[in-house]
Amino acid sequence: MRAGPSQEDIRRHNLGTLLRYVHVHGATSRAELTNRLGLNRSTIGALTAELTTAGLVSEAAPRETGRAGRPSLVVRPESSTVYAYALSIEVDRIRAARVGLGGRILDRRETDRPRGMQVLDAVEPLVEFVRELRREVPEDARYVGTGVAVAGMVRRADGMVRLAPTIGWTEEPVGAALRDELGDGLLTVGNHADVSALVEHARGAAVGSDNVIYLYGDVGVGAGIIADGRRVSGHGGYGGEVGHMVVNPYGRECSCGSRGCWETEIGEYALLKHAGRVDETGREAVLGVVDAAMRGDSQAQFAVRQVGEWIGFGVGNLVNIFNPEAVIFGGTLRDVYLVAAAQIRSRLNAIALPACREHIRLRTPELGYDAALIGAAELAFEHLLEDPLLLS
Amino acid sequence: MRAGPSQEDIRRHNLGTLLRYVHVHGATSRAELTNRLGLNRSTIGALTAELTTAGLVSEAAPRETGRAGRPSLVVRPESSTVYAYALSIEVDRIRAARVGLGGRILDRRETDRPRGMQVLDAVEPLVEFVRELRREVPEDARYVGTGVAVAGMVRRADGMVRLAPTIGWTEEPVGAALRDELGDGLLTVGNHADVSALVEHARGAAVGSDNVIYLYGDVGVGAGIIADGRRVSGHGGYGGEVGHMVVNPYGRECSCGSRGCWETEIGEYALLKHAGRVDETGREAVLGVVDAAMRGDSQAQFAVRQVGEWIGFGVGNLVNIFNPEAVIFGGTLRDVYLVAAAQIRSRLNAIALPACREHIRLRTPELGYDAALIGAAELAFEHLLEDPLLLS
Repeated sequence: MRAGPSQEDIRRHNLGTLLRYVHVHGATSRAELTNRLGLNRSTIGALTAELTTAGLVSEAAPRETGRAGRPSLVVRPESSTVYAYALSIEVDRIRAARVGLGGRILDRRETDRPRGMQVLDAVEPLVEFVRELRREVPEDARYVGTGVAVAGMVRRADGMVRLAPTIGWTEEPVGAALRDELGDGLLTVGNHADVSALVEHARGAAVGSDNVIYLYGDVGVGAGIIADGRRVSGHGGYGGEVGHMVVNPYGRECSCGSRGCWETEIGEYALLKHAGRVDETGREAVLGVVDAAMRGDSQAQFAVRQVGEWIGFGVGNLVNIFNPEAVIFGGTLRDVYLVAAAQIRSRLNAIALPACREHIRLRTPELGYDAALIGAAELAFEHLLEDPLLLS
Repeated sequence: MRAGPSQEDIRRHNLGTLLRYVHVHGATSRAELTNRLGLNRSTIGALTAELTTAGLVSEAAPRETGRAGRPSLVVRPESSTVYAYALSIEVDRIRAARVGLGGRILDRRETDRPRGMQVLDAVEPLVEFVRELRREVPEDARYVGTGVAVAGMVRRADGMVRLAPTIGWTEEPVGAALRDELGDGLLTVGNHADVSALVEHARGAAVGSDNVIYLYGDVGVGAGIIADGRRVSGHGGYGGEVGHMVVNPYGRECSCGSRGCWETEIGEYALLKHAGRVDETGREAVLGVVDAAMRGDSQAQFAVRQVGEWIGFGVGNLVNIFNPEAVIFGGTLRDVYLVAAAQIRSRLNAIALPACREHIRLRTPELGYDAALIGAAELAFEHLLEDPLLLS
């Protein structure tokens, strides 16, 4: 319950607001900025000048508009020179990218992650990727920081991975290991579903929706939840573990030690088991079942129906709890959703109260697998957007 | 994404911040306000003078402190003259109160609500209560507005009760009916568990915790959820319907039309049924079972165990989803919690992930049944706290 800000606070806040606007929306005319930010023209001009001096945006005349009068200058984020590194550790892949201000992926590397791969073995190729990416950086470019997305429960304070059952890690100091190896303290670690949710909210399928559940499924299931425009992170940053909502008290044992967790009914293993393909794993195997179901294979259709029922069931519960406007199905849940949408909707309707679901939209991600990388980069850009003069 | 505020915005913001501080914390010295609000002494003096002129606070010398030097003046909310009406429609009671700024109940009325009572029959005694309360209001007192808490799903915009299965109402325009009968447009309707949660967070068992789940049980179960210090209300204001989270896919039919909802396992009916007392209803009946369990009655103990298991189960799910610091058990869940705490905790520990539950505290409400009335009044005070010069 702090009192109001000082003049200097307001100036920095306005600088951050303007920079965030062009970071999220891309090139924007001064006229539109004046309109959107509720500031007068001279203030917008002064802020833009300051951000230009700091090397964060550039201004140029727009292309020929065909209208009379002097056209409004267009302000762009300096995507090619201001950048962050984004790393992502997923069940089957590890990826790295250099991401420019504005969320543009400038360069990328990735490789398979064999299941069971330990932390040090994952850190090594990531560090190598960053070294490779560094060699390609133009001389005048400016580094903001590194963000890491991990498919697990991450302690906000230091990037300790507390539990990541699907990648098999418990209490692993991923943040510290990467900081040491990269010799870089500007490194923040977050949860894969959380950062993906933020990006779909800012730039993707949930633009304009302030209450959003982004579900990400592979072996496990996690959620990034946005309530009233802000991420539901919980006390230690561990909120959103919807995969461990118990939906079937008489269900199978889960990797977390409990029984009947949602992910035991809708994760990769359940789908492959129902489809009679217990020897297969991974996204390709899931796509195989989905394709077979579309081609009319009855056991694959059975598997998709079973999983679809339980997806609708759990989403119905979450809708009663959150009353969201949008639910986004990411990861392999996207593929299952595309063939089981009617069934998911029907089960959801049976469980969710009419008032809680009346305005709901079910969606697939717009940014696909890039969401995690762009979202990881956001962890690094966030410091700059909070205070654009940080680097100056 | 609006830009920073103007000087006038800041002044009003500071007035609201100061008024909110003494509204929540009661009498506070100027020295402490200076410290808490991060403003200098002269600004605090000017703001206090303005609020005093507006009749919202008063200042006085503190009682003898025994210390040397001039003591700091103490600022108090004008509880006896600035007031709101608070109405509460619950399963078994309807209540009304006059509540002074600072959350002090100045006068109150209540009566039983027979189950099955329809909206018009509930509105009538409430209106009569308000008329009685009005007759006792001192001449110089100032009315701020009326807040209503209803044990059901309330549309934020107009106070339409969309669904209140436990009181038997569907699509009832409670807000409009009360506004008409009272001839008063300053009337806001909210959900009972939501307003109780806000009050326990501001003044009760969850002070200092920013991630809180307040559960309220009687026939049904609702929650007021606070994430990162703010209420999770959802798109239409219907969030928190945790009583309709399905926990038992093979369970009993619920009043909402679904099956196996949490409230079918932990609500009043489940407890009384397990205890072999299907002919009884209401809080007294629940207390009867709890007392019998404490005295060693084996069937009552069985009932409490059964319900305790399912309470722990559902709380475990919510802890995985929200990673809260505190869970508060209100209504009859409080009474069951007091005899089944160990069991609830044990089941919760089995279901909730260690990182999600590691700092959790289980609590009973501090404000008891008054929370709903004080919380309803907050709905009315909120407008004043947003802009203290509203009435001037």
